[in-house]
Amino acid sequence: MSEFNNVTVIKQANVYFDGKVNSRSIQFADGSVKTLGFMQPGEYTFNTGAPELMEILAGEMAVALPGNDQWLTIKGGESFEVPGNAQFTVQVKVASDYCCSFLK
Amino acid sequence: MSEFNNVTVIKQANVYFDGKVNSRSIQFADGSVKTLGFMQPGEYTFNTGAPELMEILAGEMAVALPGNDQWLTIKGGESFEVPGNAQFTVQVKVASDYCCSFLK
Repeated sequence: MSEFNNVTVIKQANVYFDGKVNSRSIQFADGSVKTLGFMQPGEYTFNTGAPELMEILAGEMAVALPGNDQWLTIKGGESFEVPGNAQFTVQVKVASDYCCSFLK
Repeated sequence: MSEFNNVTVIKQANVYFDGKVNSRSIQFADGSVKTLGFMQPGEYTFNTGAPELMEILAGEMAVALPGNDQWLTIKGGESFEVPGNAQFTVQVKVASDYCCSFLK
């Protein structure tokens, strides 16, 4: 899907790590939420609330998922899931465009 | 206005300057378009097609507008307009969140 229709967009960005990671929140009619975000090269650790599906739309990163001590390489067009109430770390190699879906 | 309702959001980011400037395009029912974007610190020159209203939602930059050889300081909560078919340069001092409206 290349666009989201009939959605609400929060104007102000979500800003993390001095803006090296930033995103916009998108609310859907069914109550679900996604964020569309962008990461500069660097290493970032995030905490999840709900489980997340992270689609990498462009760029390249390595990700360390909870309970997995290996770094997985993820490129544009690939995705990964993170459990809820967990922590994961990404090493962004190439500035990366992403879509994060909060799962239930 | 803190949110945009009943809009279409293009999923993929618009990426400029290796991603140091990135934005998302928002389409409104009346056919108008805005972009919600984010700039890392640095200096960037842009070319306009349509005239633009640039609202700086957060951050700080200096802007050189067409035909004006002075740098104007613009902070979060302030805005500036740029004529169509023109060029302007910003020196982003603090990572900046912005909303760009394309005027007619």
